[in-house]
Amino acid sequence: MSTLIGNVGSLVTNDPSHGSGPLGLLTDAAVLIEDGRIAWVGPAAEAPAADGHVDAEGRALLPGFVDSHAHLVFAGDRTAEFNARMSGQSYTAGGIRTTVAATRAATDAQLEANLTRFLTEALRQGTTTVECKSGYGLTVEDEARALRIAAKHTTETTYLGAHVVAPEFKEDPAAYVALVTGEMLDACAPHARWVDVFCEQGAFDGDQAREILTAGMARGLTPRVHANQLNHGPGVQLAVELGAASADHCTHLTDADVDALASGDTVATLLPGAEFSTRAPYPDARRLLDAGATVALSTDCNPGSSFTSSMAFCIAVAVREMGMTPDQAVWAATAGGARALRRTDVGLIAPGARADLLLLDAPSHVHLAYRPGVPLTAAVWRDGVRAV
Amino acid sequence: MSTLIGNVGSLVTNDPSHGSGPLGLLTDAAVLIEDGRIAWVGPAAEAPAADGHVDAEGRALLPGFVDSHAHLVFAGDRTAEFNARMSGQSYTAGGIRTTVAATRAATDAQLEANLTRFLTEALRQGTTTVECKSGYGLTVEDEARALRIAAKHTTETTYLGAHVVAPEFKEDPAAYVALVTGEMLDACAPHARWVDVFCEQGAFDGDQAREILTAGMARGLTPRVHANQLNHGPGVQLAVELGAASADHCTHLTDADVDALASGDTVATLLPGAEFSTRAPYPDARRLLDAGATVALSTDCNPGSSFTSSMAFCIAVAVREMGMTPDQAVWAATAGGARALRRTDVGLIAPGARADLLLLDAPSHVHLAYRPGVPLTAAVWRDGVRAV
Repeated sequence: MSTLIGNVGSLVTNDPSHGSGPLGLLTDAAVLIEDGRIAWVGPAAEAPAADGHVDAEGRALLPGFVDSHAHLVFAGDRTAEFNARMSGQSYTAGGIRTTVAATRAATDAQLEANLTRFLTEALRQGTTTVECKSGYGLTVEDEARALRIAAKHTTETTYLGAHVVAPEFKEDPAAYVALVTGEMLDACAPHARWVDVFCEQGAFDGDQAREILTAGMARGLTPRVHANQLNHGPGVQLAVELGAASADHCTHLTDADVDALASGDTVATLLPGAEFSTRAPYPDARRLLDAGATVALSTDCNPGSSFTSSMAFCIAVAVREMGMTPDQAVWAATAGGARALRRTDVGLIAPGARADLLLLDAPSHVHLAYRPGVPLTAAVWRDGVRAV
Repeated sequence: MSTLIGNVGSLVTNDPSHGSGPLGLLTDAAVLIEDGRIAWVGPAAEAPAADGHVDAEGRALLPGFVDSHAHLVFAGDRTAEFNARMSGQSYTAGGIRTTVAATRAATDAQLEANLTRFLTEALRQGTTTVECKSGYGLTVEDEARALRIAAKHTTETTYLGAHVVAPEFKEDPAAYVALVTGEMLDACAPHARWVDVFCEQGAFDGDQAREILTAGMARGLTPRVHANQLNHGPGVQLAVELGAASADHCTHLTDADVDALASGDTVATLLPGAEFSTRAPYPDARRLLDAGATVALSTDCNPGSSFTSSMAFCIAVAVREMGMTPDQAVWAATAGGARALRRTDVGLIAPGARADLLLLDAPSHVHLAYRPGVPLTAAVWRDGVRAV
C-alpha cells in the first residue's frame, strides 16, 4: 500500500541534496509513502504512481517535530505554584518535590493515562517523536515503573533518577548518589536508552554528575545532561567531555562552553518554554549558531517550569527572543531534535526515513513563527499512518 | 430549549456578585442556557432542571474571548516581509501598502472567504466576538466594500480609512484627510459602528486625527484610536478627550497619558502580538493597572505586524512580559474586550448575557498562561449554540 502526498506548496526535507538551503526546500513537490517509510521525494510533476492520493492543496509539509526533552511521566499539576510565581514570587527547584509526591501516590494506570494524554496532545500539534524522562519517582521502584510505562510508548526513554536529591536523602546526598548509581540504576537500565543528570546548584555538582553519567554509560546507556540552566557551571563541558548526545538548557554559557559545544559532537538543546514560564533570560541561540554548534529546540514539557507541549510555540519564541531565523528554528525543532537523539530515521523527509510528517494549514513553514499560538496542524502521519 | 452545563470545575463569571474576586470565580458550578442567553448561574448542587445536559467533567468554563482589535478584511500575506524582519531588518509602516495592493486586487468573494476563514479559526480558539476594521482599501469603493463584507459577520465594524495615507495621495496628505472625512466617510458610515485612526509619526498627526474622529462622530460613529504604538504622541490624550471607547497599543506612555487613561472612560487595549512579532518593547500593563486604568487584551490580527488570532497566546505573553497576573490577563481578554467595545452582553457569564462560552480542556483558566501555545479548546458556544 503506497500513498502519494501531492500538490505540496512548500516541502521542508532537511536534506540539502533534495532542495535549496539547509532545509532542503522544494516547491510544487510530492512525497511517496510506502510501508511506513518515505519511498520517494521530488517535483510533483515527476511523481510516481501510488495506490492512494492526498492533495496537500498547496500547503507546507515538513518532518514531524522531534521533541528530544520532555518530562511526561508525572501526576498532578502545579497551577498554584505557577500562579504565585507570576504574581512575583521567585522559582526554586524545590517545586519538583511537589510533583514527586503526587507521582509516587499515583497508580500505574493513572500515570500511563496522563502520559498518553500528553503524547496525544503533542501528536495533534505535529510532534511524532518524544523523549520521556523519569525523575519524579526518586525511589528504585518509582523510577523503574516510570521508565517501564514510558517504554511502552517511546523508544527514547531517559533515566533521570538524578533529577534532584530525593527528599529522604536530604541530609545525605552521597547516599542518594550511591543509590542512583547502584540499585536504582540496576532497576532502571533495562528500560532506558539514555542516562541524564540535573547538574546545577541545588541538584548535583560536577563530580556527582560525572559519577552518575559514567555509571550509566558502564551499563550501556548514552549520556545527556541538564546543563547550565540557572547558573554557570560544569555541566556543558562535562557533557562534551563524556560525548553526551546533548547538553540541555545552555542558558548560561562561558566562551569556553560555547567553544566546547562547537568543537564536539554534543548538541545544544534549547528549551525556551522554561525561560518563558519562569521569566528567566533566554539562551542565546545566535551565539551558538555563529560559533558552529548544532542547536535543537524542545519543549521541556513538565508541570513545574514549562508546561507547554507545543513545538510551534518554542519555534516562535526562539525566533522572537533567541536570535534564530524561522528556518533555523524549524530545522532545530525537527532535524536538530533528531541529532540530539542520534536518530537518522526521523527529522527529515528523504527516501528510507520514517514517514513522520506534518502538513500545515499554511503555505510555508515560516508561518510557525509568523502566526504564534495559532494551531496550524492540518494533518499528521506517523510511520506512514494518518494519525491526525 | 434549555441546556445545563454542569460539573464545571472552575467558572469565570466576571461578575463579582456571583463568586470570588474580580473574576467572580465559582467552583463546582453550573450554567443554564436558554434561548441563546444565560438564564442561571450557580452551584451545581442547586442547578435547575433543563431539556439538555452537558457534563463539563470538572473543567474550566469562561466567557468567550472578546477580540476588540483585528484587521481581518485583507488579501495576501506578508511571509517574506516577516522572514526578512526576523533576519534583522527593521519594520516600517510602509508594509501596509503591500496588503493594500493585494486587497484592492481581490474579489469580494475572495475577501469574504478570507474573513470567514479567520473568524472560524478564532472561534475554534474560543473567540466569540471579533471587531473588524477596514483600512486596506484606502479608496472610497474599497473601504466601503470592506465594511459591507465585515458587517455581514460582526456588528463591531470599524471605519479605518485613516490607516495610512493612500499611496495615490503621498504628496498631498491633506487631500487624503479631506477624502476620509468626506466622500469616503459618506460611503462607509452606514456600514460602521466605530471610527478609528492610526495616530502616529508616518501616519496621521494629532490635528489630522482629531479632524477624522470628529467627522466620524458627527456621523454617529464612536471613536477608537491606534495610539502611541511606535512612539510617544498625542493619540492617547486625544482619545480620552474625545471620549473614545479605547486607545489601542499604548506602548509608549508618559505619566500624563497614564493619568488620562486612569481618570477617563477610555479603555487601554494592549496588543502584545504586535510587539512579539516586531521585536518591539512591550506595553507596561502593570503601570496602567496600578494607576487604575481599565486594560483590555486583543490580537491586532493582521498580516503585517501581528498575524496571530490566538487570545490565549496574548494572555500568555501579557503574563510573561507585561506584568499581568493570569487573572488580570483573562479578565482583560474577556470583560476588558467587552468594555473596549462598550458591550454589556458579552465578556461575562451572568443572567441575561449572551451564551458565548469557552470550555477549556483544563481545570483552571490559569492554564491559558500556564500552558502557552497549547490548544486548550474543549467546546465553544455562541449565542447558546454549540459552535466547536
